[in-house]
Amino acid sequence: MEKIIMEHGSGGRATGELIRTIFEDAFSNPVLSQMEDAAVIPGGAQIAMTTDSFVVTPLEFPGGDIGRLCVCGTVNDLLMRGATPKYMTCGFILEEGAEVALLKRLVQSMAQTAREAGVMVVAGDTKVIEGNGGIYINTTGVGIVPTDVDIKAANAKVGDKILVSGTMGDHHATILSSRMNIQNKIVSDNAPLNEMVLQLLEQGIKVHVLRDVTRGGLGTVLKELAQSSHCEFEVEQDLIPVSATVKDFCGLLGLDPLYMGNEGKLVAIVDPEDEAKALEIIRLARYGKDAVTIGTVTAEHPTGNVLLKTHIGGRRSIDILQGEGLPRIC
Amino acid sequence: MEKIIMEHGSGGRATGELIRTIFEDAFSNPVLSQMEDAAVIPGGAQIAMTTDSFVVTPLEFPGGDIGRLCVCGTVNDLLMRGATPKYMTCGFILEEGAEVALLKRLVQSMAQTAREAGVMVVAGDTKVIEGNGGIYINTTGVGIVPTDVDIKAANAKVGDKILVSGTMGDHHATILSSRMNIQNKIVSDNAPLNEMVLQLLEQGIKVHVLRDVTRGGLGTVLKELAQSSHCEFEVEQDLIPVSATVKDFCGLLGLDPLYMGNEGKLVAIVDPEDEAKALEIIRLARYGKDAVTIGTVTAEHPTGNVLLKTHIGGRRSIDILQGEGLPRIC
Repeated sequence: MEKIIMEHGSGGRATGELIRTIFEDAFSNPVLSQMEDAAVIPGGAQIAMTTDSFVVTPLEFPGGDIGRLCVCGTVNDLLMRGATPKYMTCGFILEEGAEVALLKRLVQSMAQTAREAGVMVVAGDTKVIEGNGGIYINTTGVGIVPTDVDIKAANAKVGDKILVSGTMGDHHATILSSRMNIQNKIVSDNAPLNEMVLQLLEQGIKVHVLRDVTRGGLGTVLKELAQSSHCEFEVEQDLIPVSATVKDFCGLLGLDPLYMGNEGKLVAIVDPEDEAKALEIIRLARYGKDAVTIGTVTAEHPTGNVLLKTHIGGRRSIDILQGEGLPRIC
Repeated sequence: MEKIIMEHGSGGRATGELIRTIFEDAFSNPVLSQMEDAAVIPGGAQIAMTTDSFVVTPLEFPGGDIGRLCVCGTVNDLLMRGATPKYMTCGFILEEGAEVALLKRLVQSMAQTAREAGVMVVAGDTKVIEGNGGIYINTTGVGIVPTDVDIKAANAKVGDKILVSGTMGDHHATILSSRMNIQNKIVSDNAPLNEMVLQLLEQGIKVHVLRDVTRGGLGTVLKELAQSSHCEFEVEQDLIPVSATVKDFCGLLGLDPLYMGNEGKLVAIVDPEDEAKALEIIRLARYGKDAVTIGTVTAEHPTGNVLLKTHIGGRRSIDILQGEGLPRIC
């Protein structure tokens, strides 16, 4: 690894290598080393903190835009630690020539999504660089975690049920359709998942793990969670929800929805006793109507293993995304 | 204003216009509307939060690099609200082709500066875009503010003394020298100002306003503070410290140190009773040996006015930076 290549942004294997070899050692501390999407910072009042830069192209796409996307991404990362999102900052890097009318729309979209998600934008920054009118946004969020909440990637237990909150691949298929100028009915699922997560917690569901399915897709998420929890997961391919339009789109292009990112879907791993109630809560919440159980935590496993029961009856181990996925998907 | 131009990144008038017309309305809330460099978020335990994106070029320069710079910028913004810096996140946008060895050096430099400044890097993100090996970093910081500390731009009072912690223009002159391939002895002042600020607070100095002097330079900072406090400031040009090498450099190129940015200098506006003690504290602290008093808050003034007594005995009002200053200085 001498030079950065697009694959380092995939969210898969190359990204992991970059993080391990460059960042983890340098900043080594117990909070960062958990490598969660949001850090929970210990103390009297626990706060969670997360950061993401957004470089999606195009900036506007069916169902959303970079403004809505960056708020959703940040809010969802906080929610995945059981935190109530409270505050966020935004840093804009603007390329010279960026359309002010476009910037205005994007900022309005951010503001509207922040209102929906109940977060307050408390600080910002703008920088301008040479270029061709591109816009990049970094958002950082802070949330409050009740001291009795402990949701993290390492907490899956044998017997737990693995739920997803809806259809896979929608955001990826939207961005790819936009770039290829393909006309279809696919829209991005970019959405803030406050309602379903906070309802799960309020109603006392024993939630062990939450993770939003973004870059790298469901396959990458499941493998990372199995590794963190040292467990084996068994998942049925036929149970993984994919909308008919996305399924057609994937068939046409030879894409696997298992490795396609979303921006408004989550994996929840819950105590088996609470499976039915958890599903009901998620289905009643905004953005959760297609929630289903897709599998079970079947055994302990030192290095983490994810078995996919395929629809022809086979069974294969799945790994995290290799190669570059879709550059600049978020 | 239809398209973004480099001047929108100056930190002066055009930046202000961009913030007011695009961002302030959209995200309107009492915390953001104070337009401080760090937001203090009310609550039982007050936290301060700040964000900055760094786009400096070149990435490495005499005395520092973008890694040291981004930590200093974030830590100093927190300190300027009287907050003790605690946690930070970093978001990297990497252009394809970026040298991994360079990235490693920059990240090591960040880590070392974070240790010096006593902040823990608790979360991060990496994205990759097309390009020519450029590296952009966003850092967001969180600090803790004691509930009895109230330091903000609006707090200058008639009679207060205006102090600066050292020589002006060093960072600006360094970046410009690097870009022009001019060989000289100027080095960037990029530094975390924890020691001087926390010592001022610990020793009970009545500090009313703190502001680090970055993009836009001392002239912009003074004018903004006078506006926020509705006061008139009187400042003596001959008292403003500028190193001999920077003075020569400015003379050669026709530059005004009053509008040249630093990355490790602050303006402190303090109760006149505490002037001597405050100066002593800053001079004894790391990075503060050249601290001096440069002026006084002389009167109330509805719209804020800064009078500069020039070295030929004249007196002129100074305004915030107009035009583009030095693009990509930070």
